[in-house]
Amino acid sequence: MRSALEEAGWPSRVLVGCSGGPDSLALAAAAAHFSRRGEIPGVGGGRHALEAGAVVVDHQLQEGSGEVARTTARVLGELGLSPVRVVAVDVQLTGEGPEAAARTARHAALTAEAVSWGAQAVLLGHTLDDQAEQVLLGLARGSGPRALGAMRRVRGLFVRPFLGLRRADTLDVCAAEGLEPWFDPTNEDPRFMRSRVRSTIMPFLEAELGPGVAHGLARTAALLGADADYLDDEALRIYRTLAEVGPDAREVTPPPREVTPRRIVLPIGPLLDLPPALRGRVLSHAVTELGGQPTFERLGAVERLLDRRGSAGPIEVPGHVSACREPRRKGTPPPERAGRLVLVSHR
Amino acid sequence: MRSALEEAGWPSRVLVGCSGGPDSLALAAAAAHFSRRGEIPGVGGGRHALEAGAVVVDHQLQEGSGEVARTTARVLGELGLSPVRVVAVDVQLTGEGPEAAARTARHAALTAEAVSWGAQAVLLGHTLDDQAEQVLLGLARGSGPRALGAMRRVRGLFVRPFLGLRRADTLDVCAAEGLEPWFDPTNEDPRFMRSRVRSTIMPFLEAELGPGVAHGLARTAALLGADADYLDDEALRIYRTLAEVGPDAREVTPPPREVTPRRIVLPIGPLLDLPPALRGRVLSHAVTELGGQPTFERLGAVERLLDRRGSAGPIEVPGHVSACREPRRKGTPPPERAGRLVLVSHR
Repeated sequence: MRSALEEAGWPSRVLVGCSGGPDSLALAAAAAHFSRRGEIPGVGGGRHALEAGAVVVDHQLQEGSGEVARTTARVLGELGLSPVRVVAVDVQLTGEGPEAAARTARHAALTAEAVSWGAQAVLLGHTLDDQAEQVLLGLARGSGPRALGAMRRVRGLFVRPFLGLRRADTLDVCAAEGLEPWFDPTNEDPRFMRSRVRSTIMPFLEAELGPGVAHGLARTAALLGADADYLDDEALRIYRTLAEVGPDAREVTPPPREVTPRRIVLPIGPLLDLPPALRGRVLSHAVTELGGQPTFERLGAVERLLDRRGSAGPIEVPGHVSACREPRRKGTPPPERAGRLVLVSHR
Repeated sequence: MRSALEEAGWPSRVLVGCSGGPDSLALAAAAAHFSRRGEIPGVGGGRHALEAGAVVVDHQLQEGSGEVARTTARVLGELGLSPVRVVAVDVQLTGEGPEAAARTARHAALTAEAVSWGAQAVLLGHTLDDQAEQVLLGLARGSGPRALGAMRRVRGLFVRPFLGLRRADTLDVCAAEGLEPWFDPTNEDPRFMRSRVRSTIMPFLEAELGPGVAHGLARTAALLGADADYLDDEALRIYRTLAEVGPDAREVTPPPREVTPRRIVLPIGPLLDLPPALRGRVLSHAVTELGGQPTFERLGAVERLLDRRGSAGPIEVPGHVSACREPRRKGTPPPERAGRLVLVSHR
């Protein structure tokens, strides 16, 4: 708790996002403990003022969710958290799936509450087990290093003080505080891959490979997260020096109204000079900026356009983006590595 | 096969490292196919000369291993590979475990054979499944990004043309060629973690998460390998600009004979300016250069020495290395971020 709040710059007003589950309920109890005293000891000595409220988000996706939220809010109030608010949200189902949609709605509601109460941080109850499950899910999907980096202890407003704790520890905290957590039935629903990871796969791996698996996965997430941060920043910096971004006057004529077709041009020589770790990310930035989805396989195909001996494209990327190597002008054979890569949005 | 050989610069003489198992036997059959014709078509057209021999390494760890090796060698000769050599090695058990020791001995023998026959490459039969299992093992152990990057298609002399193929495909190749592979009983021995991963865990994950898991893991390995390559290179470059390396005259007096105590000094300010992904790797290089083992946890403790508010050490690292923040001289309070980190080998 303390080292996470130190990393977040000692926010003096925090909101706990609480579902009523064991993780966030234990977190609420910890925050309430310090909030009742009005301060929290610093890591290397000293004291920092702390005032803690809580928000219970009612996703309205399950029968009786309103009742769970109100019961949770009552318990939080009894713990001494103030203010305690219940916020009902409408989850808008998108292509990302119900879980991502619920998260988006929840984060928006928590951010709005933090702003309106003047809180500098929102505390979330994710544990080491959540982190490990996230890594395993990312691996199963073949997600890139960014997804494997998983959750950070501090990211913007959101702070996760329990990311080093096991889920079992939060159950112990609840029991010690005499709190009765709510168990979300969807966590046991085998239709959700995340539930299968939690209820079946992680226990199996711990039995087969040893109890250190969750720690191993979480440690991996920490290392990969730091790597991905640096590489993404570095690639973005390089992208900005290389890319010519503009509306496309030539490729789509006339442009459909209410749409802004755009094109991004990158010089091939400097791209070839980059190490593969950065080259892929620079191309990924370009695709993302045009609204495309840079999948592993399609990004590889775009990268192969850089080889003058191969196809010049066009290569289609999901999200209505296409890429090609610029045709060389007649009678002017370009030197090795000359030429440009052109990415266009057809949306 | 062809794109791997292209990546390796079209070696004209190759040796196949063959255990007699389905993966390397299928690879030997593929190499023999082109070797019999004396050439292999290029990826974008053209032809490249190819001459292929084989080496069967007898690890002498199992009853009857010599017989397996001789039988395999006979089959390889019938396929038209030439020369075919059986090399018996003595596996020296080290702290790394029997599997690593066998690999070290095998690689040394293959390299020696390649050099003596003038081969520019040694082909190994690793498949996508090996790659996936390697990633899973690294994760379970909490290994860093380097270990997760797993095997590369081309690394030095060693080329792995089947890294994109499933193990089941190599069985099909053997069946189609009328070859009877040998099945290593240790692959089924549950005392080895790798065997459990192969025979129990991967099938379970594929059943629970879908058949894309192995592909997902292998793809992850490819991406993480590129990241680790770049970050390691970059950190080494930075390390060389920062480190003062020398024999230690002050810290260990008198130095024990036949030992060269060494110390490495790094300035704290520039270390703090580095992104975490590089800072950890620079410190890891220093520890490794002193003969220490930079574990995740101990490296984190060394990194915390950089914080002037915390302990100045010493921090012990496995492999007889210790690190401390240099004491400031009396009466000269250093400015923020001044000072140096000193790492010493006590071996």
